[in-house]
Amino acid sequence: MSETLLDPFAFSCPAPVTSHDKIVLGHGGGGWLSANLLRDVFLPLFSNPTLNRLDDQALLKIGGSNIAFTTDSFVVKPLFFPGGNIGSLAVHGTVNDLAMGGATPLFLSAGFILEEGFPLALLQKIATSMADAAAAAGVSIVTGDTKVVERGKGDGVYINTTGIGLVRPGVALSACRAKPGDVVILSGSIGDHGTAILASREGLDFETAIVSDSAALHGMVAAMLDVSSGIRCMRDPTRGGLSSALNEIAAQSGVSIEIEERRIPVHEEVRGACELLGLDPLYVANEGKLTAIVSPESAEYVLAAIRNHPLGHEAAVIGVVKDGAPGMVTVRTSFGSTRIVDLLPGDQLPRIC
Amino acid sequence: MSETLLDPFAFSCPAPVTSHDKIVLGHGGGGWLSANLLRDVFLPLFSNPTLNRLDDQALLKIGGSNIAFTTDSFVVKPLFFPGGNIGSLAVHGTVNDLAMGGATPLFLSAGFILEEGFPLALLQKIATSMADAAAAAGVSIVTGDTKVVERGKGDGVYINTTGIGLVRPGVALSACRAKPGDVVILSGSIGDHGTAILASREGLDFETAIVSDSAALHGMVAAMLDVSSGIRCMRDPTRGGLSSALNEIAAQSGVSIEIEERRIPVHEEVRGACELLGLDPLYVANEGKLTAIVSPESAEYVLAAIRNHPLGHEAAVIGVVKDGAPGMVTVRTSFGSTRIVDLLPGDQLPRIC
Repeated sequence: MSETLLDPFAFSCPAPVTSHDKIVLGHGGGGWLSANLLRDVFLPLFSNPTLNRLDDQALLKIGGSNIAFTTDSFVVKPLFFPGGNIGSLAVHGTVNDLAMGGATPLFLSAGFILEEGFPLALLQKIATSMADAAAAAGVSIVTGDTKVVERGKGDGVYINTTGIGLVRPGVALSACRAKPGDVVILSGSIGDHGTAILASREGLDFETAIVSDSAALHGMVAAMLDVSSGIRCMRDPTRGGLSSALNEIAAQSGVSIEIEERRIPVHEEVRGACELLGLDPLYVANEGKLTAIVSPESAEYVLAAIRNHPLGHEAAVIGVVKDGAPGMVTVRTSFGSTRIVDLLPGDQLPRIC
Repeated sequence: MSETLLDPFAFSCPAPVTSHDKIVLGHGGGGWLSANLLRDVFLPLFSNPTLNRLDDQALLKIGGSNIAFTTDSFVVKPLFFPGGNIGSLAVHGTVNDLAMGGATPLFLSAGFILEEGFPLALLQKIATSMADAAAAAGVSIVTGDTKVVERGKGDGVYINTTGIGLVRPGVALSACRAKPGDVVILSGSIGDHGTAILASREGLDFETAIVSDSAALHGMVAAMLDVSSGIRCMRDPTRGGLSSALNEIAAQSGVSIEIEERRIPVHEEVRGACELLGLDPLYVANEGKLTAIVSPESAEYVLAAIRNHPLGHEAAVIGVVKDGAPGMVTVRTSFGSTRIVDLLPGDQLPRIC
């Protein structure tokens, strides 16, 4: 370990101050530009204890029930990609944000912003995928809205889904709950969604087709919660990849996280594509994976529960939580050296979800 | 009354069949093109008892509580207009859809789709209006999402708000509950929002400035529910105006509705603008008005409660529910003749909210 080589003070600084006076694509990328926008514009204005927790879902007490509430707009480009389309993605993304809060997803809303001229047949195809994904995840789309904007003021279709779930009694997950000694688990290989999107956007043809991992993870989460009360928090590493998810957890819990490169599953074709395209898989978006921070005693049981799930065969323990510089994430490379895994300004690829 | 002059069979027909194979602006206008899209694409795929009620909010039973859940995307153009901006509108619109279901609004989500190049100072101004409107309405913005699209793939900012409210015990409002003999109440003058938007879009200068009526109505609704259990349903006549709201109620309840033109308050300057622009105030959007269908016994009390509210001084009884042709809405003109108030294909103005 070469942790002593790193300057710990470098990581207690706030995210870099930017001089942007206009929105740039990176503001939507889930990296530090997004974090700045949240910190500088939205948080001071909207501030309340629920929002300020900065989890991927709000946890609300309504009439004695613990309810999870989360929203996501989807602007993925292209609309159709190997492994899914904007419709299935819009369901999986919101179902997963509910699940990461320990909630059973129950209800979704669907808001469509359609561009004038968009073919109805494609809309039908997208809505069919949404309906199929919702049925498979056991959620109902109970309310919706459709707006239309002029040609050139949209890009086919944008979809907002907002979800409501019921949190299990006794479950209280939050990115601020990681403690030194905890174990970092990853539910499977990373980078599939982002590289699939990029390959299909750029018309790249790899020998083996790369398929998005877009999937609903609430079943896996239920199995994890069934076997252990030692789960501190979970995140689905979407925009900004595994790196952003772990950086957020480390920052919010005031701990450091150390992961090991050789333990992180990356499919061969994804690795190849990333090398070709100059991408780091740690920063590439996923839509069917989760990372969980769990107590050391529960790691074995949680890992077994994930591996027994159809979507979790490749799950692995990939690192540990330490009491190093708060907010710092490092990776031990396969050469034995240690490098910092910082937040990027934005995603390496815009409009990935 | 000249009801006998009308062919009742003309109104039991379904909405016109269209040959559109592409999205047109009218599909987002709240008229029969929107209804067709819902009927032909979304309803068959997403069908469930809650959605099929077609109210502006879903009523959900979660852990013993009755919860209202509603979503709206806002694409209003221009972003800033007399009386508000897209931020305050996005809060009022969703708060009102909750209130129309008899719910106390509690929580909002906020999803932003920003266009690359949008000035941060304007975003700050819009977010400030959202925060102010939310605080005034007593709701918290508890979760959010920001996406950025390339220049030319959006129009500054689109905002989705989705809301959760708690329905009062014993309250069950629905557009399918209107009965012959019921009374139609309108909470104030119509047409202000739509004409304000159009005037500001077209740079028109009227002698008296027309200001949007954008406002949160949950306080008025609470006062109405306090005095009566005879309220069948409420609608805020937004896209498509009072005409769409009443047509939807008439269709869903299988009744006819007859209103009287001379009883419908329209501000002088709005009437003038509508004449100049060739608009019918009955079809122009409002963002701070409601129409309520109430039992004849309760009409007097409900009307008094509305008039006592700061936003309801101009409230009036404007018509009655009848057992005429199901779904038919007629207006008795000031000349004493009766004309049909049908659904338009879409709103007279696109992107009104």
